[in-house]
Amino acid sequence: MRESYRVAVVGATGAVGNTMLQLLEERSFPVASLKLLASHRSAGEILSFKDTPIIIEELTHDSFEDVDVVFSSAGASVSREFIPTAIEKGALVIDNTSAFRMDAATPLVVPEVNMDAARAHNGLIANPNCSTIQMMVALKPIYDVAGIKRIVVSTYQSVSGKSGRAVMELVQQTTEALEGKPVTLDKFPHQMAFNVAFDWPFLDSGDNEEEVKMINETRKILEDDTIGVSATTVRVPVFFAHSESINIETDEKLTAAQARECLATAPGVKLMDDPSNQQYPLAVDVAGEDDVYVGRIRDDASIDNGLNLWVVADNLRKGAALNAIQIAENLLSA
Amino acid sequence: MRESYRVAVVGATGAVGNTMLQLLEERSFPVASLKLLASHRSAGEILSFKDTPIIIEELTHDSFEDVDVVFSSAGASVSREFIPTAIEKGALVIDNTSAFRMDAATPLVVPEVNMDAARAHNGLIANPNCSTIQMMVALKPIYDVAGIKRIVVSTYQSVSGKSGRAVMELVQQTTEALEGKPVTLDKFPHQMAFNVAFDWPFLDSGDNEEEVKMINETRKILEDDTIGVSATTVRVPVFFAHSESINIETDEKLTAAQARECLATAPGVKLMDDPSNQQYPLAVDVAGEDDVYVGRIRDDASIDNGLNLWVVADNLRKGAALNAIQIAENLLSA
Repeated sequence: MRESYRVAVVGATGAVGNTMLQLLEERSFPVASLKLLASHRSAGEILSFKDTPIIIEELTHDSFEDVDVVFSSAGASVSREFIPTAIEKGALVIDNTSAFRMDAATPLVVPEVNMDAARAHNGLIANPNCSTIQMMVALKPIYDVAGIKRIVVSTYQSVSGKSGRAVMELVQQTTEALEGKPVTLDKFPHQMAFNVAFDWPFLDSGDNEEEVKMINETRKILEDDTIGVSATTVRVPVFFAHSESINIETDEKLTAAQARECLATAPGVKLMDDPSNQQYPLAVDVAGEDDVYVGRIRDDASIDNGLNLWVVADNLRKGAALNAIQIAENLLSA
Repeated sequence: MRESYRVAVVGATGAVGNTMLQLLEERSFPVASLKLLASHRSAGEILSFKDTPIIIEELTHDSFEDVDVVFSSAGASVSREFIPTAIEKGALVIDNTSAFRMDAATPLVVPEVNMDAARAHNGLIANPNCSTIQMMVALKPIYDVAGIKRIVVSTYQSVSGKSGRAVMELVQQTTEALEGKPVTLDKFPHQMAFNVAFDWPFLDSGDNEEEVKMINETRKILEDDTIGVSATTVRVPVFFAHSESINIETDEKLTAAQARECLATAPGVKLMDDPSNQQYPLAVDVAGEDDVYVGRIRDDASIDNGLNLWVVADNLRKGAALNAIQIAENLLSA
């Protein structure tokens, strides 16, 4: 890496932006200067980085002068409007929104999985969807040794994947529900307290946008259009960390024991699989951790080459900010 | 039906027992007399049925004199000990525990699915596991028209499926978690508030007991040992109603539209499938309802004959007490 970089964080006040600041500090990312960018509404607010107060600036097309690296997580429409300018000004942009993920010219990258793809960038690398990232980290080592024909995944996604305000709404709804009051519906279309629900826009196919992301991004990251993916994405009343029930059909037979062996040394994976001693990953334990936790690896006798896995990761860290920073770290150190 | 029956409820103080009393009243089950049986600890307590107080009696081998119908839900070991006596005394027993479900001589029955099997009983009919019942009600109509080769199911099960005390523990844990205190662990091995977890005993295979029940009971109910079932059962912080993400591979092609048509008139099924208008079943809405709600029926493009469904039912009603009462109603009216 060069000695240090002028960094800009777009969407600094959001849940991902906040985690980004924490991680830049935690990981001693070589920050020469830090520009925090947000909407007009948040401009003038102050956030802290390494005990130094930084005033949030309004994001404009002039924001990217003298910036080396941009981490963007303010929503797809903001990315679509401003990222071209940032690239033009010569910045390396890591975008955490869906804006450019399926753009053929933009690499979609999970460092443990396809870092090579990132090196062909034209100034922009897309960070995959949170639920895709953790699935890819867990499945790539298996894909490499046994091939994967098909994935059937059902998710248990935390509300922080929606927004920081959604976290507060779950707190509020929970308090209201315990008091027997009607729950406030603002960020969520349905009661989220003591419920499981869907809160992503639906397409004509009946899939929601999150499900389609998991399907398309998996294929792009693995560079394999033959892989079948069926996804059902569900929001659960959990604050942090997404859990996934993943069933796969491999090309070659891989037993649960072999899969465990394969994942034990896999990059970014923490194997936690001893159910008889109550050892398996749980969202409340994995929240705040960097690794993708994998447990409950089981032979699935319903087909010849079937396996089940339970995969949990912190959606704001590995599912978003951490993955983005790792991409930058890898590219800049190359 | 005969004019009326002398009914005994074993496990009257439990969550299922309570729902049983409610439903016997709601459905005007022809009760000539009602005996409420429980452990020594609960004997002497008073419950109300049709505004009449009934004193709970201690369950003994003498409890079944002058009883026509027994509904049992006090746990498998209690059923194993006392049901043979009840049968011997001539009672018709509907057992809601796992004690005799896989016993070859005992019919395992969901009325909408295999009521014929019940008629061959020797005094005892087993009520399937809650998560199996709702899956069977939803899948049998599809099985009949297109065949089913394989099921991959991930569940989102409410805490009332564990016990009434588990419901109270979720309330307590939630309050503690919101106050930033350590959560009380009594009924649950892990924090259940704002978490998703596993709380069934694990087998050497790595499957838990609930998962094995779903596999074995499905095959027994459908009388089809060729059907492949892969199950991942998960407890979620929901009070009432289980949700299930079900992926199936049919023998013959059945489109989502055809499946919808097939389920629209299926017995015990309520189709609720209009996602663009936010219409799909959610646990908080289905709690207290009798039907099995099915929505989010989607073509699964990852295989030739794939379908996804989202199935929600009240685990204490259709998943337990209601199914048991329906079995009795059907047999007695025959």
